[in-house]
Amino acid sequence: MFHKWVNYHSVKSFNSIIKSIIEKRKSWLCVGLDISPESLKSNNFQALKEHTFKVIDATKEYAVAYKPNFAFFERWGSAGFAWLEETVDFIGSKHIKIADAKRGDIGNTAVQYSKSIFDHFNFDCVTINPYLGRDSIKPFLEKTDKGVFLLARTSNSSAEEIQNMKENGMTLFEKVVHMANDLNGKDNIGLVVGATAPRELQMIRDISNGMPLLIPGVGAQGGDLLTSLKIGNQSGIGLINISRSISFAGDMSSKSIQKAASNYLMRMREIL
Amino acid sequence: MFHKWVNYHSVKSFNSIIKSIIEKRKSWLCVGLDISPESLKSNNFQALKEHTFKVIDATKEYAVAYKPNFAFFERWGSAGFAWLEETVDFIGSKHIKIADAKRGDIGNTAVQYSKSIFDHFNFDCVTINPYLGRDSIKPFLEKTDKGVFLLARTSNSSAEEIQNMKENGMTLFEKVVHMANDLNGKDNIGLVVGATAPRELQMIRDISNGMPLLIPGVGAQGGDLLTSLKIGNQSGIGLINISRSISFAGDMSSKSIQKAASNYLMRMREIL
Repeated sequence: MFHKWVNYHSVKSFNSIIKSIIEKRKSWLCVGLDISPESLKSNNFQALKEHTFKVIDATKEYAVAYKPNFAFFERWGSAGFAWLEETVDFIGSKHIKIADAKRGDIGNTAVQYSKSIFDHFNFDCVTINPYLGRDSIKPFLEKTDKGVFLLARTSNSSAEEIQNMKENGMTLFEKVVHMANDLNGKDNIGLVVGATAPRELQMIRDISNGMPLLIPGVGAQGGDLLTSLKIGNQSGIGLINISRSISFAGDMSSKSIQKAASNYLMRMREIL
Repeated sequence: MFHKWVNYHSVKSFNSIIKSIIEKRKSWLCVGLDISPESLKSNNFQALKEHTFKVIDATKEYAVAYKPNFAFFERWGSAGFAWLEETVDFIGSKHIKIADAKRGDIGNTAVQYSKSIFDHFNFDCVTINPYLGRDSIKPFLEKTDKGVFLLARTSNSSAEEIQNMKENGMTLFEKVVHMANDLNGKDNIGLVVGATAPRELQMIRDISNGMPLLIPGVGAQGGDLLTSLKIGNQSGIGLINISRSISFAGDMSSKSIQKAASNYLMRMREIL
């Protein structure tokens, strides 16, 4: 991955790689690939595959990263995973490939998931759920140039039920940020923070020691682009994920998809 | 699923189905399918598949449930998911099929995972991570006869880091149990509690209103069978999962695997 940026005498860390790509491209746009028959209004499996490649083709000049969401592929079983394999190949090595898998399991099992995501599928990084504590995260951090985005504060409406729980004045999501800081010895861990929670986003940015943030929730979920991009990039980089508002823009033609991605990137460049 | 127990005029709930099967069979044994090349000491994919079917064949008289762990299949990508599809078929309809997937995502994505697990793979129930709160769990609870086992207190050594966090005297794992109680309107939610934490297991059994418990951690992970089986079945049923100590017992022959399963079941029947 990222051959141009890797110095083989000393492997660069995932966090430094992602920072230099974003600065070089001047793009903070991650395109989420959540291709469902409900959104495409077609149950034809081949049509879903073709739409995925169409989205990637139409957005590759604007996006710096792609984030396939495993659920949308897994829904089709082995055929869906073959589609995911093709999708990762189609993205190629010029973009950051984020596995949106939200895995979280005991160490022995986490090892298997890390082999799946990094060795089999060849993703550059993966989203991980913190509920099982640090021994469920460590297997994903072994390779310096492969990264983790740990869920801190998610974008959904019931997120605060668990994540805003407080012990001695510290919320659970803040505790997760401190855990990520502790685990960042190889400079390859970042955080997921929803754009729908700007107050929490600011709290997290303030204590995250410059770790990269992956920010979903702009677009269909209603999060604000300006606020989240600004806060997200106050220190360290903040990657903004857009899924449905790009993949299913307008009449879903290449032109509409391209225009949506181009518009998002233009607005981002105006803001930063 | 479970055609013998389903009255088509009023569909039975998952929790009542699992209870009646366990009582009928007098077995609390769930066999976990975590088939790795490291444990089998073979990198041959076909050998891994054959070993899976061997384990199921050798244990079907003793087990009441099977729990394939998705990570061990996903590691091989689309070929691994084809193996998982064959495994579910091979188990058939006489045992409870538990998808050990530990999924947890926003509602829109959770819908896709529920289609994967219940509609595509035809599992009877699934393990779910509570970090994202109730809107990430609800899509899995829509069908009365399909169930969820929500992670409350896991069996790994760093489990307490997040799960034992306390707010106003209540731990996070207790909060999760109360959330499960709230979500149990269709009598189809249970809890995952590790055998390695007997104190927490007792606390959870005391407040879980008879919900079924799925208890991993006996065997290779060191949890005690007697304690966890007794506490787990004080009210409601407690299913004991054994993975490596059965699947890779002795010389890994059918005979050794069968003997291990038979011994576990004999000890369980002596205890209860």
